[in-house]
Amino acid sequence: MAGFRSVPAEPVIVQALRGSRPERLPVWFMRQAGRSLPEYRATRAGTAMLDACLTPELAAEITLQPVRRHGVDAAVFFSDIVVPLKLAGVDVEIVPGRGPVFGRPVRDAADLADLVAHDLPDDAFAPIEEAVARTVAELGPDVPLLGFAGAPFTLAAYVVEGGPSKDHLRARTLMHADPEAWRTLTEHLARVSGAFLRAQVRAGASAVQLFDSWVGSLSEADYRTHVLPASAATLAEVPEVPRIHFGTGTPHLLPALRDAGADAIGVDHRIPLDAASALLGGDVPVQGNIDPALLGAPWPVLEAHLEAVAAAGRAAPAHVLNLGHGVPPETDPGVLTRIVEWAHGR
Amino acid sequence: MAGFRSVPAEPVIVQALRGSRPERLPVWFMRQAGRSLPEYRATRAGTAMLDACLTPELAAEITLQPVRRHGVDAAVFFSDIVVPLKLAGVDVEIVPGRGPVFGRPVRDAADLADLVAHDLPDDAFAPIEEAVARTVAELGPDVPLLGFAGAPFTLAAYVVEGGPSKDHLRARTLMHADPEAWRTLTEHLARVSGAFLRAQVRAGASAVQLFDSWVGSLSEADYRTHVLPASAATLAEVPEVPRIHFGTGTPHLLPALRDAGADAIGVDHRIPLDAASALLGGDVPVQGNIDPALLGAPWPVLEAHLEAVAAAGRAAPAHVLNLGHGVPPETDPGVLTRIVEWAHGR
Repeated sequence: MAGFRSVPAEPVIVQALRGSRPERLPVWFMRQAGRSLPEYRATRAGTAMLDACLTPELAAEITLQPVRRHGVDAAVFFSDIVVPLKLAGVDVEIVPGRGPVFGRPVRDAADLADLVAHDLPDDAFAPIEEAVARTVAELGPDVPLLGFAGAPFTLAAYVVEGGPSKDHLRARTLMHADPEAWRTLTEHLARVSGAFLRAQVRAGASAVQLFDSWVGSLSEADYRTHVLPASAATLAEVPEVPRIHFGTGTPHLLPALRDAGADAIGVDHRIPLDAASALLGGDVPVQGNIDPALLGAPWPVLEAHLEAVAAAGRAAPAHVLNLGHGVPPETDPGVLTRIVEWAHGR
Repeated sequence: MAGFRSVPAEPVIVQALRGSRPERLPVWFMRQAGRSLPEYRATRAGTAMLDACLTPELAAEITLQPVRRHGVDAAVFFSDIVVPLKLAGVDVEIVPGRGPVFGRPVRDAADLADLVAHDLPDDAFAPIEEAVARTVAELGPDVPLLGFAGAPFTLAAYVVEGGPSKDHLRARTLMHADPEAWRTLTEHLARVSGAFLRAQVRAGASAVQLFDSWVGSLSEADYRTHVLPASAATLAEVPEVPRIHFGTGTPHLLPALRDAGADAIGVDHRIPLDAASALLGGDVPVQGNIDPALLGAPWPVLEAHLEAVAAAGRAAPAHVLNLGHGVPPETDPGVLTRIVEWAHGR
């Protein structure tokens, strides 16, 4: 056997995202690095969210915590969708209990010109690349790192409102009232998020997920006309790795999300994975979709739900087990560990 | 012609809700009585929301204001979904800028027993009936009054959380963790909302709308198992009038909402009315679905949207023009008047 070297197998999550069904059901959790973990709360204590994101040793440590604790099949880079805007010098902070708040919401042409003028210098992503490189070195070859960015619509919803909002009315009004300004805004945000993804992939991320959390507030027609081109441009920046596209409230948008050029689609708890896979044409790997509300139910109830999710996931060419949305902060982390054990023990 | 008396035609909205297409496109707006109107803000000044709801002359005046101003085809009774709980003696207030807040959220069996023990005395609805009777007398025979109640799921989401919430996680956890307690809770809320609707119909409301605003956070399976029976029980309390069933984020739930026993379905802006009508089987009157975000766009943009909404509405047996959600508080009321003129001038 001298001279014979086996090629190391791709990590199970990457196999699944590329459309083949690996030997075991891969699992990770959106927002697995976060407030549900006591070690996260200890690490973060006294540090503002965006400062933690931009301090490489902190971001790496927080990214690694859930891998150590739960044994998930992937790390997801600890960051926030507004990080690339912050790196471009935009006045944005994350207010605890509220979310991103912008000093100058985009309400008119001057605001828009000001935002777009905040360009990203070549070395803007240095702290991100350092954090990613540290993380990847610690993870080793078996556990991949997933990169992370916000999609242009969800970012625009924050930027136009100036903060979180319920129906993203102001952003959706701008989209129709001034489609030209809207295009300028979303093309800019696509560049910013695309550069953020590129930096993470350059530094070692094995796959990425584009978060369009609020996209479910759009009709399919509005999505295709006013949003899809910018999301497609973002995803097109990292063709060399598998790209997951995720939103909530999307039963009516799944084919459109696929058409933005993703390799896999994240599905929330509103629609079973077999129905989602059928809407997607039957040939797209799916990710999801444990209902976060079930994390607080007794284990036999949750386990029956996991069985149903895994069974429905077999309708797709491949399935990555995940929640339908981020880990709620009040989640008992022991439940997440048990879900990983369940997935790996099948 | 002596002795010949023409039977007065039913109001156009009632005709449409019963499934026939009236001579003109009927229109009203959810939350038409409210903060978008300066006369409303003047009338409400210094009076807490629930006090206004329970003062017959105030509730009647506020209900009439948008009819006088806009010439809409129906009044909708000014109230709040928590009013029947307040009348039952439950500790609930409406906090400006936040919404309903409960003194004792339902978190355990004792909380639930306490809530259910707050029964409605026979004369509980006296102020509601007086307000409805006053309103109907002033409206005259041509403009009907629509009654109003909250559906059990949306009410339960508030009661279990203790106030507004994003994904209604606590309520959805209870649904799975303790289905028996959930059934007790929703059956109670169905009785309460059903009695509220009955009181309004008894006093002269010509049709009703059941608001299940948050129902879009459910999967169809959860809706059918854990929610539909209680909503059906509520709607079954007023079989003598047309019943509209409304929720937001419901593209995946429309057939289930129909199966709860409604005569017409309110559709939000996420799905065109022709697609909604097809999902509903093609034989159900639809209501909606002007995108509230378009109210802030220039008139030609809004008008093109109105044309598209009206054209899609022709796929259903009948169509009541409305927004896809409530009037946003910052809406220019002149735009609403113009929409009514547009609908009536076609």
